[in-house]
Amino acid sequence: MSNPEIEAQLAPLRERVQEQGNLVKSLKETGAAELDVKKAVAELKARKKMLEDKELALTPSVVSFDRAKMEDLLKRRFFYDQSFAIYGGITGQYDFGPMGCALKSNILSLWRQYFALEEQMLEVDCSILTPEPVLKASGHVERFADLMVKDVKTGECFRLDHLIKQALEKLLKAKDATPALRAECEDIITKLDGLSKQELADVLAKYSIKSPLTGNDLTEPIEFNLMFATQIGPTGLVKGFLRPETAQGIFVNFKRLLEFNQGKLPFAVAQIGNSFRNEISPRSGLIRVREFTMAEIEHFCDPTQKDHPKFGNVKDEKMTLYSACNQMDGKSATQFAIGAAVSAKLVANETLGYYMARIQQFLLAIGIKPECLRFRQHMSNEMAHYACDCWDAEILTSYGWVECVGCADRSAYDLGQHTAATGVRLVAEKRLPAPKTVEVSEIVPNKQALGKTFKKDAKTITEALAKLSLEEISRAEQELNANGQYKLILADGNTHELAKDTISVKHSSKTVHVEEFIPSVVEPSFGIGRIMYALLEHSFQCREGDDQRCYFTLPPLVAPLKCSILPLSNNAEFQPFTQKLSSFLTKAELSHKVDDSSGSIGRRYARTDEIAIPYGITVDFDTLKEPHTVTLRDRNSMKQVRVGLEKVVGVVKDLATARTSWEQVVAQYPVFEQQEATK
Amino acid sequence: MSNPEIEAQLAPLRERVQEQGNLVKSLKETGAAELDVKKAVAELKARKKMLEDKELALTPSVVSFDRAKMEDLLKRRFFYDQSFAIYGGITGQYDFGPMGCALKSNILSLWRQYFALEEQMLEVDCSILTPEPVLKASGHVERFADLMVKDVKTGECFRLDHLIKQALEKLLKAKDATPALRAECEDIITKLDGLSKQELADVLAKYSIKSPLTGNDLTEPIEFNLMFATQIGPTGLVKGFLRPETAQGIFVNFKRLLEFNQGKLPFAVAQIGNSFRNEISPRSGLIRVREFTMAEIEHFCDPTQKDHPKFGNVKDEKMTLYSACNQMDGKSATQFAIGAAVSAKLVANETLGYYMARIQQFLLAIGIKPECLRFRQHMSNEMAHYACDCWDAEILTSYGWVECVGCADRSAYDLGQHTAATGVRLVAEKRLPAPKTVEVSEIVPNKQALGKTFKKDAKTITEALAKLSLEEISRAEQELNANGQYKLILADGNTHELAKDTISVKHSSKTVHVEEFIPSVVEPSFGIGRIMYALLEHSFQCREGDDQRCYFTLPPLVAPLKCSILPLSNNAEFQPFTQKLSSFLTKAELSHKVDDSSGSIGRRYARTDEIAIPYGITVDFDTLKEPHTVTLRDRNSMKQVRVGLEKVVGVVKDLATARTSWEQVVAQYPVFEQQEATK
Repeated sequence: MSNPEIEAQLAPLRERVQEQGNLVKSLKETGAAELDVKKAVAELKARKKMLEDKELALTPSVVSFDRAKMEDLLKRRFFYDQSFAIYGGITGQYDFGPMGCALKSNILSLWRQYFALEEQMLEVDCSILTPEPVLKASGHVERFADLMVKDVKTGECFRLDHLIKQALEKLLKAKDATPALRAECEDIITKLDGLSKQELADVLAKYSIKSPLTGNDLTEPIEFNLMFATQIGPTGLVKGFLRPETAQGIFVNFKRLLEFNQGKLPFAVAQIGNSFRNEISPRSGLIRVREFTMAEIEHFCDPTQKDHPKFGNVKDEKMTLYSACNQMDGKSATQFAIGAAVSAKLVANETLGYYMARIQQFLLAIGIKPECLRFRQHMSNEMAHYACDCWDAEILTSYGWVECVGCADRSAYDLGQHTAATGVRLVAEKRLPAPKTVEVSEIVPNKQALGKTFKKDAKTITEALAKLSLEEISRAEQELNANGQYKLILADGNTHELAKDTISVKHSSKTVHVEEFIPSVVEPSFGIGRIMYALLEHSFQCREGDDQRCYFTLPPLVAPLKCSILPLSNNAEFQPFTQKLSSFLTKAELSHKVDDSSGSIGRRYARTDEIAIPYGITVDFDTLKEPHTVTLRDRNSMKQVRVGLEKVVGVVKDLATARTSWEQVVAQYPVFEQQEATK
Repeated sequence: MSNPEIEAQLAPLRERVQEQGNLVKSLKETGAAELDVKKAVAELKARKKMLEDKELALTPSVVSFDRAKMEDLLKRRFFYDQSFAIYGGITGQYDFGPMGCALKSNILSLWRQYFALEEQMLEVDCSILTPEPVLKASGHVERFADLMVKDVKTGECFRLDHLIKQALEKLLKAKDATPALRAECEDIITKLDGLSKQELADVLAKYSIKSPLTGNDLTEPIEFNLMFATQIGPTGLVKGFLRPETAQGIFVNFKRLLEFNQGKLPFAVAQIGNSFRNEISPRSGLIRVREFTMAEIEHFCDPTQKDHPKFGNVKDEKMTLYSACNQMDGKSATQFAIGAAVSAKLVANETLGYYMARIQQFLLAIGIKPECLRFRQHMSNEMAHYACDCWDAEILTSYGWVECVGCADRSAYDLGQHTAATGVRLVAEKRLPAPKTVEVSEIVPNKQALGKTFKKDAKTITEALAKLSLEEISRAEQELNANGQYKLILADGNTHELAKDTISVKHSSKTVHVEEFIPSVVEPSFGIGRIMYALLEHSFQCREGDDQRCYFTLPPLVAPLKCSILPLSNNAEFQPFTQKLSSFLTKAELSHKVDDSSGSIGRRYARTDEIAIPYGITVDFDTLKEPHTVTLRDRNSMKQVRVGLEKVVGVVKDLATARTSWEQVVAQYPVFEQQEATK
């Protein structure tokens, strides 16, 4: 991005963003009307989008990447493909074939090592089917929705914002469009993100927008909840959803987990599992799907202590940070050491900064290109209302910058919501520096009088009284003083009038040594499918001079198979050697593939390159002679060395676990020269 | 089972089973009426059940096992617990806490090593959400159901067979029951398994059976499909289910997988993933749940070649086989070498036998007790109609013998069903020993005439004609000869009358070198939750003389954490050593737990024993002296040795990966004597 020619082209666009950013700031500062702010923010977003599109159009890796060619290879060698294709397929669902499944599983095991093991996290595995009340508390039942309209005749569905944008763009491009109409359409498109359901419905009506496929009328806008609904049990009375994220399973188990950790904070909980979103119209391959694997971490800590004991280990990690400020000012992302970014308060706290650095280390370890990774801060207007700071790890792909890992400080929001919904206090305790005296109010029931008046209900009433909040107790006291009785409302909705003779309010003081608080949560949340897709793009290559010979340069650590075994020909004498090598590799826990099919050795190398196998052992006529030797070939350089039969598995093991590098192997063993002919 | 006293008690029950087994055989041989056979089979099952119940009541391990005590520990240390408990919980759903999750994940990684890696299987990862047509073809939409009735007022649901049995047992125990009524009730209970929906409804009406909870009336019997239903996409038109097994995802990808394997058979495909069953009334903890992890293998082979190249490796494996014959004869299970069982045709073929032996090796490796494992053959009347042989690995628990792994030869059933439903031929090819000449019939369209008559439909018709089966072509020929026209039915239901001038049938002969066939499938299917539960029961122990001190003897390979680090006291000088050890263990990829909380060392050992940590490193005052040493403690024997600080991590690594045993360690390092006081 530092190319001066490119910068010259971007400069006017940067200026337009900054101008609008300033306008938004001043509107906010002067307390302008909400609608004006919204409109200005929408325009700011549009200008940011234009800047980013232009930047991408000038980025060589994005321009030269041939997505169709890569997708053809992924499909042909069944890395992944559409689910249920023989039944016509379902959009937004993919099956991972042997290579995709192994790649995913290797990424996840490295993730476990980098996070769960390294940080001694508590890993859990919670239910996918989730009853409605849980997702009501988390806000998903009410808010996790997109607006859509349906074709009244065919029932075809359209995402409303996409549909309006498409229709108005068509209108304003029409030859007979008046300048007034054009201005109006442009204005609506700019504001689109900020419009309410009713405003969008008005736009739909005003321009008589019809189905773009059939020309049929459309329904009113409908809020479509993106969760898959089902019923748990046979009665049809327990509504449930497939979880839209794995996080809620952790929050509802907070008490058990805190107890497992012997009551101590901070601690982190990890979970790998599938989540589900019923997208209205999924597209963009693995980037937007209905069923996906997430790896989430919830780090619970004292809200007043967000420093991190291991922050020193990562403080010098250089990161590309795209701050909210830079976004407002039309500037590009900037390099920072994470330590400096936290000191400068650009990143809110050490814990958040620590995870951002670890996320980066993990992504680079699996093979993401450093120049295609940035951390983008959410601007205040796009941040969930409960978060205090949020940075997305975005990876550059041919679809643009794609959010692959979110890293948010969610404060006490989730635990607070579930506490409110269940009455179970999801809190931690900490020792006070010194004991303190607090005033305590409680309601003391007069058992005899209560029993006489309420008979069998007396027990329920006594229990309910013990659970009243401080506010409710003081309300009770006021009522008793004013009216001589207090109206108790039970959880089931029943009410009881309690007269003065049945209860009294007692005040006392008590020395406490601990204080309760709701922990804060820092949440790194990984979209495994997106990371995998980005990694495939970053590692896709074609051989120089032969663009039909494509391969993936996946690092050995995550490559689906670590090694191939290729007998030079189908000579029967080779067989004992291939079998022996295969059993050695199995013992060393190295996944591998024997390709003893016909076809030239070059063609077979090409075939193993396609599925990203980093190393190949070839058994040839020299192998038959003593001392037995084989050749070992490196996928990326296509260079070969000659290694003793007994040693080669150890060498591959060291390469596959990154204990040695190919350069070191070449320095140690004689190079084997031979042309790779594919024909 | 060879105890003569016990055998004497079982003898009369064995005789009763054999007597009834003989009756069933003779009824079948003489072609008796179906209802009579069913009745006799039901009685046979009842007698088998009585025999088994008696056997269990006399099995010491089952009698002495204290399930409540184990469940208390599992809950207290959050191995697993009911999901969403703070919201009241959902029956049949469990969350795995840190220890349960790690145990499960270790079992699965060993499974991958034993099966996927060792046999070079193709591992896949397919969608959970499955569109209806796939599960119609597999038979799940129609047949995967239980009968239930509902309380007409409360909506409470009851599994019909359980309900009737309970009601009739109550009737026949009543004091005023006449001998006639008793006999009738007993007869119905015996026959229950074989009764149709209508017959069960009649029983319900005849005895005026009401809800056992409220006494309210019940609905007519309803077939309740055990799959969770949902809708895919926003239109509400695409019905889908959560998969009830992972297998179908493999079958629908058969073509891609065969191609990945370069067209060659046999090959095996593995999949680990979650499946869902909406049980009417789940119970028995992890044994019957609504959401569970399966690990399934589909081994595809030529139906005429079911031998297995590695069968020789396992042929001497001794197994406890409970054959269908022995079950009919009231005999107990018998020890067999699997090679002998296959030779004697007791087990249908080598491939099935190979997997049975490998299943046993795997289960024993994770810690299942050999004396509590048997393979039970399905009797012909309980075998799915498509299977030719099926053996369940059953594990003895306090719930009785529980089916944990199924191992079935499913023949060509599944691929045949999906071929029929989609028209996509899920077949393999094999080279014929010699080329052969076959007669070919095809329909030749007269393009000009077709175009003239059918205009734009001509193309569709031509395509449909090319896809006709041989039978259909011969039918077409007959119709053309008889009526001068052929009625073509298209896939969408439309029909076209094709006159003689538009098509003709051509016969020719052709030399073919390959032949198509539908592969057979051998399916080992593992229920991971059930295996885990059985393993926990088998490894649950209490210390002699202190029945409050319980622990699990899980083998190090699968134990959730491999090691604990315990500083003897909170002396600050110990800290650098515990930190160093922890970072060494992390580098060696050994999961571990530092317990530096207060509490005597004995109490902390007990706490780590509870979560099955097999080894404990203690840092004490001798550690501070040079050369630095620590003690290493073995959970099972509670013995300790003294090991150098630099060496101990290597020792734990060798122990945790089963490269050495505790006995070898004791032989090599000085024993450290110290009393473990827990108080």
